[in-house]
Amino acid sequence: MKRETYRLLEDYMLSCMKDSAHDQEHVYRVLYLSLDIAQTEPTVDRDVLIAACLLHDIGRREQFEDPRLCHAQVGAEKAAGFLKEHGFAKDFCRQVQECILCHRFRKERPPQSLEGKILFDADKLDVCGAMGIARTLLYKGYVSEPLYSLNPDGSVSDGSQEETPSFFQEYKRKLEGLYSRFYTQRGAELAAQRRQAAVDFYESLYGEAKAAYEGGREHLNQCLEGSA
Amino acid sequence: MKRETYRLLEDYMLSCMKDSAHDQEHVYRVLYLSLDIAQTEPTVDRDVLIAACLLHDIGRREQFEDPRLCHAQVGAEKAAGFLKEHGFAKDFCRQVQECILCHRFRKERPPQSLEGKILFDADKLDVCGAMGIARTLLYKGYVSEPLYSLNPDGSVSDGSQEETPSFFQEYKRKLEGLYSRFYTQRGAELAAQRRQAAVDFYESLYGEAKAAYEGGREHLNQCLEGSA
Repeated sequence: MKRETYRLLEDYMLSCMKDSAHDQEHVYRVLYLSLDIAQTEPTVDRDVLIAACLLHDIGRREQFEDPRLCHAQVGAEKAAGFLKEHGFAKDFCRQVQECILCHRFRKERPPQSLEGKILFDADKLDVCGAMGIARTLLYKGYVSEPLYSLNPDGSVSDGSQEETPSFFQEYKRKLEGLYSRFYTQRGAELAAQRRQAAVDFYESLYGEAKAAYEGGREHLNQCLEGSA
Repeated sequence: MKRETYRLLEDYMLSCMKDSAHDQEHVYRVLYLSLDIAQTEPTVDRDVLIAACLLHDIGRREQFEDPRLCHAQVGAEKAAGFLKEHGFAKDFCRQVQECILCHRFRKERPPQSLEGKILFDADKLDVCGAMGIARTLLYKGYVSEPLYSLNPDGSVSDGSQEETPSFFQEYKRKLEGLYSRFYTQRGAELAAQRRQAAVDFYESLYGEAKAAYEGGREHLNQCLEGSA
């Protein structure tokens, strides 16, 4: 890819994400992880992959503003429109569009092309390990959701039986089970390397919160006079 | 303390923090951790301690809206006003006010009373370990600050020489050095138990980000034609 083409796509990505430092960082990591995975895939089209990585989340803002929209669908449309407008070949536009449309985990829409599978894996890798924990916490802070919910008996819920949105709920529902869902061998390998950091963090955080509530609520009860 | 007194203070705290689930959770953890520490301090006044813990962060909103304000000063004033209005003894009001005023890390205003020292330690404990990492990330997400900055050469900064606000900068500036600053033995002991979880998480996250950028930027350069 020509440097000026890269800059054109990068500038368009940045203009779509100008309010979100986190989303921009994520895009570069996905691009870099994709190119790492691509090293082990001799038949990959790197130009399609680079364009798809740079533009894969440009529909995020639309989804955030209207949660009924799917950022993969919106982003795929926007990307195809932008590429056509700037004279990219029809087949190139179609390939990039397909990668973006299928990068989100949806059973009915798995990635078909090699480039789509690499983008999918790189995007999932960025929700693995310590990075996945960090990004999930940034998001929970952004939308003001709590770290945990309390069980009916007042103890800290570990998130596994939780309906209310919280960090622990997200960890149990999404993050914990990610590690077996990779299309490429290199993606699965990188995910496996990151797994323990996420497990350790969740267990430490749950342990700290649980211990504070368990001891503290008992002590508090002993300090309070009168009926509960 | 009578249960109805506890509920009066709790309701006032909740009314001051109604928009912030994180701040409410933090208040309960500080209360519970304080009561744990208090178990090892025979002369503590638990009523002063409970009131000070519940009300220690009620000045947060004012500081968030106007960063020139100090939430410890605002909170101490608000708490004293509320307690006086509800007929608490003058000396009790003064003691609670002093605890809240001195709970923030400020060289010129260290806590003097035992209850003030316990509140200070419990509040600092909640920035230690995995909990400290989680709370800092929630806050960074809330104010839209990034995880890391890039060095002039494009590599990921570890935060130690950083001027720009980021999670890594906060970790290096504040979180990493917290563990030696405790007044009570029990506080220091709990902090020491939590330390490794924070160190491990920072190192994992830095390692993951660094590796992605290092490999990826090299691969990207090899894909791009034309002058940089």
